[in-house]
Amino acid sequence: MDAQLRDVSLPSRIAEPGEGISTAELALAARNHGIPLEALRYDVTPIGLHYLLTHYDMPALDAASWRLSLTGSVAGAREFALDELRSLPSRTVRVTMECAGNGRARMHPRPVSQPWLVEAVGTAEWTGVPLRHVLDAVGVGDSAVEVVFTGADHGVERGVEQDYRRGLPLAEALRDDVLLAYEMNGQPLPPQHGHPVRLVVPGWYGMAHVKWLREISLVDEPFTGYQNAVAYRLKQSADDPGVPATRIEPRSLIVPPGFPDFMSRDRVVRPGPLTVTGRAWSGHAPITRVEFSTDGGTTWADADLDAAGPRWAWRGWRVSWRAEPGEHLLTARATDAEGHVQPVDEPWNRGGFANNLVHHVPVTCIED
Amino acid sequence: MDAQLRDVSLPSRIAEPGEGISTAELALAARNHGIPLEALRYDVTPIGLHYLLTHYDMPALDAASWRLSLTGSVAGAREFALDELRSLPSRTVRVTMECAGNGRARMHPRPVSQPWLVEAVGTAEWTGVPLRHVLDAVGVGDSAVEVVFTGADHGVERGVEQDYRRGLPLAEALRDDVLLAYEMNGQPLPPQHGHPVRLVVPGWYGMAHVKWLREISLVDEPFTGYQNAVAYRLKQSADDPGVPATRIEPRSLIVPPGFPDFMSRDRVVRPGPLTVTGRAWSGHAPITRVEFSTDGGTTWADADLDAAGPRWAWRGWRVSWRAEPGEHLLTARATDAEGHVQPVDEPWNRGGFANNLVHHVPVTCIED
Repeated sequence: MDAQLRDVSLPSRIAEPGEGISTAELALAARNHGIPLEALRYDVTPIGLHYLLTHYDMPALDAASWRLSLTGSVAGAREFALDELRSLPSRTVRVTMECAGNGRARMHPRPVSQPWLVEAVGTAEWTGVPLRHVLDAVGVGDSAVEVVFTGADHGVERGVEQDYRRGLPLAEALRDDVLLAYEMNGQPLPPQHGHPVRLVVPGWYGMAHVKWLREISLVDEPFTGYQNAVAYRLKQSADDPGVPATRIEPRSLIVPPGFPDFMSRDRVVRPGPLTVTGRAWSGHAPITRVEFSTDGGTTWADADLDAAGPRWAWRGWRVSWRAEPGEHLLTARATDAEGHVQPVDEPWNRGGFANNLVHHVPVTCIED
Repeated sequence: MDAQLRDVSLPSRIAEPGEGISTAELALAARNHGIPLEALRYDVTPIGLHYLLTHYDMPALDAASWRLSLTGSVAGAREFALDELRSLPSRTVRVTMECAGNGRARMHPRPVSQPWLVEAVGTAEWTGVPLRHVLDAVGVGDSAVEVVFTGADHGVERGVEQDYRRGLPLAEALRDDVLLAYEMNGQPLPPQHGHPVRLVVPGWYGMAHVKWLREISLVDEPFTGYQNAVAYRLKQSADDPGVPATRIEPRSLIVPPGFPDFMSRDRVVRPGPLTVTGRAWSGHAPITRVEFSTDGGTTWADADLDAAGPRWAWRGWRVSWRAEPGEHLLTARATDAEGHVQPVDEPWNRGGFANNLVHHVPVTCIED
């Protein structure tokens, strides 16, 4: 760590009990954004509504002069231009992507970082070349165990100056649905989603999907850079080595029914029958069950699942509810085919990762 | 005000000294978002980077079945389908749009509402039919004084259930550059920017640019609905009638140089010559001067203005700076042709509107 940078960089910190969101956290929230929950109605999230988390600045890359370097433990290091990637076999994969920090600002105590509540998610159709075709073209060395992806975004984090960089185990990198994506929803990647090329690792939290790629390097030892070894680990204390955040834990979100109060975002409905809908997803296995509660989780009923769609996209669900005057706390809980169930108590950790506590939506049903 | 809704709706409130951002403010910040300041580099802001403020939920409108009602003090009330609007003469106008609440979270004390720092701005190319063509088609009544625009977005605000609705003086509405816009940056309006049709009133703060239009009504008395009479007024106290927010006050923003710390957003540069750039705009008159300071406003120097572009779009500026090791506070101040100058002290009001206090960017220049 550079001593000068340590002075610039705020240390990792847990908020005091009752401490409000700081200006630094607000500055992050003002530039990064989640999905407005009513936009869960779209199977594929329109550009501008998908969640966005940028560690540093979005770099300004020119697609025509952009090159991707393939280096390290390969038979033949080389560069690829965008046209060269586009000439390789392409694939489109619909992927629900979620930030590993989603739910952080609901934690008690709150880890101080990008303050997501529940909305750091979106689903897009990513088109690109499966990474394995590019790796085949350069010949992966027999001793390689991980693939290290470097973005062009540059900054400081906890005193460490860096380009954003993440390692991924080789077995994951060779999956047929891991893409070097150059289109999102049928359009060239917009600047904020990694123009001109990003990595997409379906099922993993967003930190793995490196944006603004400039280099891919095959390495013979597991990568120990900042974003794998220090950040994105579930730790109980500062000196706990922790476990890495990898695949997305199951979560369900409710499309808030009725209409909102501007300031509180609390919901208002009128008495009578309603259909409440939502989405659920898991990076481990397909969603097999969503339960719904109107009393904050005291009693539960099964929701109807929509037909299963693409493997890596969220699954819709719906439930009928007859609203009666008074206060209600809508809650939904997802379960996947491997038996992972959303918790009703928050799974706290020091970095504020993977908090998939069930979603609560307070609703007031007013007299007609 | 409905008593039941008053209980749902949080009252207008000023934060206590030192009070952090509340969860309700954070929920607004997580769904609405500003422009990441590095995206000031684009003359036209890409979709997804333009600021966004939605009072209630984004409605789901179907362009094919959508109709716009023209009603009130007109010779012949009628409806328009989207194709009918598209068959009228069209115009494209490049417009810098800013939220009237931009700067609110920098105020002392802080009005509790959408907590913008400085980033609630963007520039888009809006294509649509000048409103006057549509008004001509229905024949404006001689007694009409205002045009009232109603959106399909529905919610509660300070206890008042409403569709979002704003009145605009007839003289403004008849300007040739006031549009019923159906395209943004050459594409059909995205859901979040008012699909299928919104109002665009160049030079006015964003609250005038009503999204998801469903009705336009000519009225013979000034409109006294919530968004004109209660909200969007600059008041010094709760019982001050105040003055309405209308045209955009001058502002300049700096493209932060160097690279950021993830958490603090503070900037790091290395010693040597730099070009610092930015944008400036005013809804009153063209920008004629931008001053730049590296010591927080103690001393100022004139920046070079880029060639003047379209009237309603921001103007670029640039300045050379030789960074030397140490702490610097970059500041920029805009002046327009009518002599409006950005203040160096915050212009406080109870609603947190039109705070165009100069932009400050702390920069640390480290040793090479």
